[in-house]
Amino acid sequence: MLRHLIRANDSKIIFLVIDGLGGIRTPAFPKTALDAAVTPNLDALASGGICGRSLPITRGITPGSGPAHFALFGYDPLAPENDTGRGVVEITGVGYDLLPGDVAIRGNFATVDDDGVLTDRRAGRIPHEEGERICAKLGEKIKEIDGIEIIIMPVREYRFGVVLRGEGLSPEVEETDPQVTGGKPLPPVAMTPAAKRTASIIARFVSMAGEVLADEGKANAVLMRGISRRPVIEPFSERYGLSSAAVAAYPLYRGVARLCGMDLVDTGFSVREEFDTAAEIFRRGDHDFIFIHVKKTDSYGEDGNLGGKKGVIEEVDANLPALLALEPDVLIVAGDHSTPCAMKSHSWHPVPFVLKSEFCGIDGVTAFNESECEQGGLGIFPAVDIMTLALANSGRLRKHGA
Amino acid sequence: MLRHLIRANDSKIIFLVIDGLGGIRTPAFPKTALDAAVTPNLDALASGGICGRSLPITRGITPGSGPAHFALFGYDPLAPENDTGRGVVEITGVGYDLLPGDVAIRGNFATVDDDGVLTDRRAGRIPHEEGERICAKLGEKIKEIDGIEIIIMPVREYRFGVVLRGEGLSPEVEETDPQVTGGKPLPPVAMTPAAKRTASIIARFVSMAGEVLADEGKANAVLMRGISRRPVIEPFSERYGLSSAAVAAYPLYRGVARLCGMDLVDTGFSVREEFDTAAEIFRRGDHDFIFIHVKKTDSYGEDGNLGGKKGVIEEVDANLPALLALEPDVLIVAGDHSTPCAMKSHSWHPVPFVLKSEFCGIDGVTAFNESECEQGGLGIFPAVDIMTLALANSGRLRKHGA
Repeated sequence: MLRHLIRANDSKIIFLVIDGLGGIRTPAFPKTALDAAVTPNLDALASGGICGRSLPITRGITPGSGPAHFALFGYDPLAPENDTGRGVVEITGVGYDLLPGDVAIRGNFATVDDDGVLTDRRAGRIPHEEGERICAKLGEKIKEIDGIEIIIMPVREYRFGVVLRGEGLSPEVEETDPQVTGGKPLPPVAMTPAAKRTASIIARFVSMAGEVLADEGKANAVLMRGISRRPVIEPFSERYGLSSAAVAAYPLYRGVARLCGMDLVDTGFSVREEFDTAAEIFRRGDHDFIFIHVKKTDSYGEDGNLGGKKGVIEEVDANLPALLALEPDVLIVAGDHSTPCAMKSHSWHPVPFVLKSEFCGIDGVTAFNESECEQGGLGIFPAVDIMTLALANSGRLRKHGA
Repeated sequence: MLRHLIRANDSKIIFLVIDGLGGIRTPAFPKTALDAAVTPNLDALASGGICGRSLPITRGITPGSGPAHFALFGYDPLAPENDTGRGVVEITGVGYDLLPGDVAIRGNFATVDDDGVLTDRRAGRIPHEEGERICAKLGEKIKEIDGIEIIIMPVREYRFGVVLRGEGLSPEVEETDPQVTGGKPLPPVAMTPAAKRTASIIARFVSMAGEVLADEGKANAVLMRGISRRPVIEPFSERYGLSSAAVAAYPLYRGVARLCGMDLVDTGFSVREEFDTAAEIFRRGDHDFIFIHVKKTDSYGEDGNLGGKKGVIEEVDANLPALLALEPDVLIVAGDHSTPCAMKSHSWHPVPFVLKSEFCGIDGVTAFNESECEQGGLGIFPAVDIMTLALANSGRLRKHGA
């Protein structure tokens, strides 16, 4: 529907996503993190912009991070191609561009005892440098199995990626991670006859990796997860006519952005570093759309740590002037989903949202939080519509019909 | 979509439906029945819960009771199978389980004069016991027509049910009720060639019934309505993993509930009796989901009787503590549609809604009525999403995607 309405111009869009932004009020948590946080800059943005609450998928459905971000980027989060396996998302997220026939696997380094029984599914959360060392060691010994090229790369800490490259592969293979310790890893079972060869290659890889890593103290085994293939996703440039970049530190978010055709930019992890990176590429001027991802709000929400979540929100607020100073034509502050401290998990509750542009229209909202946004001019609306609003507010959409 | 997210737990859901709950304010009716009613318990529920207004079908569409209840139970009210004929719904509602090939007919006992002209389409609204006597009389004389078994049963008062059972039947036959008096009943016309035999069997039944009832003072004729066949509807147990029960006194609501796979429970007609019944089966513990249906709000709305409707709402409020005392994990108070006293009919207006659970999230609503619920945290939302919210709030949905 959108594509024939797209028109080009020089406008710039900044799309700031604060992960797990939304919260709920309960008797035990009478304030959400947004209620509790002191946010003069976000409040001013809400006063001058248009607010609402975005529904990640639909009422009552709690999204994972992948589908939630696809929705933010305007892709149907329920379409199978947008519920992409972690193998593809994380390997893409470290900047590795998969080929259509590749099978991508998210690996965990793990610890097994002498009987092969899992004692730690994350190998004591070994540091990133250890993960890099072990990947290099594996990569040196395992380069090919049964005519299929094996590419091994570190992702983060105990997490790594494996790419199988060659003819006749299939991602229809079950994961080997039993999700609990105290038993042996599962065999990689083919879910279809066409996946039998791939399953046996994965089984061989697991066995070879065990031999190579036998002398490691912690990371002496591997678990194979999120076995998947790169989906066909229309990139931002074609879908919206936008040259786009992603300022995100974590592989999953980088991966989804890359799958949507965004350029990945190296950045530090702190809010200030991310905003500095965004400002730098904004000033360079070769991107129309910059996605910035702030992670820690979600992590604190998952921990039930209201003070921590509030602190990150205040950190975003304190650094917001750096983005405002760029004077983007459209500035959006949104969340991918709610992560209420009361629940210590992702949830289905709609997420506070604000958009500021010349013609956004001003509503009556004067503070950026759940209850104020609820009364905002956008009401409660599907997150998948955010990109259309971004394009409209940047003057990049023609009218539909005469 | 939902099905692969369903997970089982021990949570209990109570879903109270107050028929025709919603109203509208007009110059002649400056208060709705909910505005006028004194409802401390419902107001407390609204204060501690999350509110909104549910759209039975979509904006501007006034639903019948059948589609409105299918929507409440999470089934698309516009899907043909969920707009089931009254024959099926009411016969199912008296506890009779139809077979897939059966044709079900809702009958009215009626009065005709010596020339066969209709003088009363409801046979003077004969009492239920009279209906039972006449059904027994008919059933004794008419057991089979043209190799097809004929099963006759009382429904309520002047309303009865006829089941045609055998091979080669079709429900594609027009009703014989002309909807007005002063003319003769219509012939049962086949709408398709395949329905010709069924039409002739129904014509023969109408004629035989006229002979058997010739000596009756009031109920001396029959009108055939809602000729229909049992639809294929995925039951609650499979769709939601819920063991469910219906506490409803009227056949139509019992019928829809039964078609959705709910167990039907015998109950008295008053609000107190219904809540007592619900409490009894709740305490027995073998149902996860209990639907309770309160009818009289709708009847008073249809009469334009604001005081009457207000009275029933206050009766619900006074008895609400009996449900609260059960401490269900999720308590929902909803309506199937609005029946504004100002209109004396069902209407399209969104219906006040409240849901209370541990993690519903508290909004700013402090009273249960149309104008307050409009400001609630759920906004205006499709009634067909209520079951998803019920499942999410009871912890029965996994997150979608990684």
